[in-house]
Amino acid sequence: MTITHHEPFIRHCYALARQAAANGDHPFGALLARDGQVLLTAVNTITTDHDVTRHAELNLISQASRQFDPATLAECTLYTSTEPCAMCAGAIFWAGVPAIVYGSSAETLGEIAGGAFVVPSRVLLAYGQWQTAVTGPILPDEGRAIHQAYWPSR
Amino acid sequence: MTITHHEPFIRHCYALARQAAANGDHPFGALLARDGQVLLTAVNTITTDHDVTRHAELNLISQASRQFDPATLAECTLYTSTEPCAMCAGAIFWAGVPAIVYGSSAETLGEIAGGAFVVPSRVLLAYGQWQTAVTGPILPDEGRAIHQAYWPSR
Repeated sequence: MTITHHEPFIRHCYALARQAAANGDHPFGALLARDGQVLLTAVNTITTDHDVTRHAELNLISQASRQFDPATLAECTLYTSTEPCAMCAGAIFWAGVPAIVYGSSAETLGEIAGGAFVVPSRVLLAYGQWQTAVTGPILPDEGRAIHQAYWPSR
Repeated sequence: MTITHHEPFIRHCYALARQAAANGDHPFGALLARDGQVLLTAVNTITTDHDVTRHAELNLISQASRQFDPATLAECTLYTSTEPCAMCAGAIFWAGVPAIVYGSSAETLGEIAGGAFVVPSRVLLAYGQWQTAVTGPILPDEGRAIHQAYWPSR
């Protein structure tokens, strides 16, 4: 799997992130792919749902675990516009999705948005009994621009 | 706040955990308290909801952030039958609940249930820009007995 292969999926996540911002939510989007096909997409809905847990990846894993069996989830890759926070990395782990590919890094988000809780996903997921592969950043300039447009005061 | 003060709330969480197991879910329960009053309770619903994200604390924080404003959440303590996993500790952090009190430790759960992803909550929450106080274990023997009854083969 080359980096170039991942780019269309990360561009899709960035489009979802822009859609979330247009909805009035934070600019994050994620999707689940298997064999190069997109199975499911999700956006951040923390403002529209009045629920701090409604990050894009948490929404995605919640829907995915209701729709797909563990064997299917074990063949998926989760793509996300920004490296997942601890809550979302935990959800991805519990779902048994073995691969995460992110656009913007958590550190970049932290620089631009304030970084209340920057936990490197590779460090966190190293606590797991099974391995979750983490790849990124991918197309970081486009990701940075989305964050800079959303949190312009920093 | 003495340890003894916490015990009735942890006993309540243990009762919720036993209720979750009776429902067919994993044996975990949590509650939100303010000024010694219980505002909200939640149980694990991962089996009944077919959703791996439906841990007791995640359910609790989801409901709490829909019902209460940030100023109220900032005055609450989250009690839980077992030390929260990384996903749930993240959710508690994002909600701005400043105090967690747990019954059984994550290490005890890990010993009995297998420990797929044991992340000490104090280590994880140290990454936060604001402090979350973590207290526990409280009444650990009662917590251990609940886990041993649920995961008897280990």
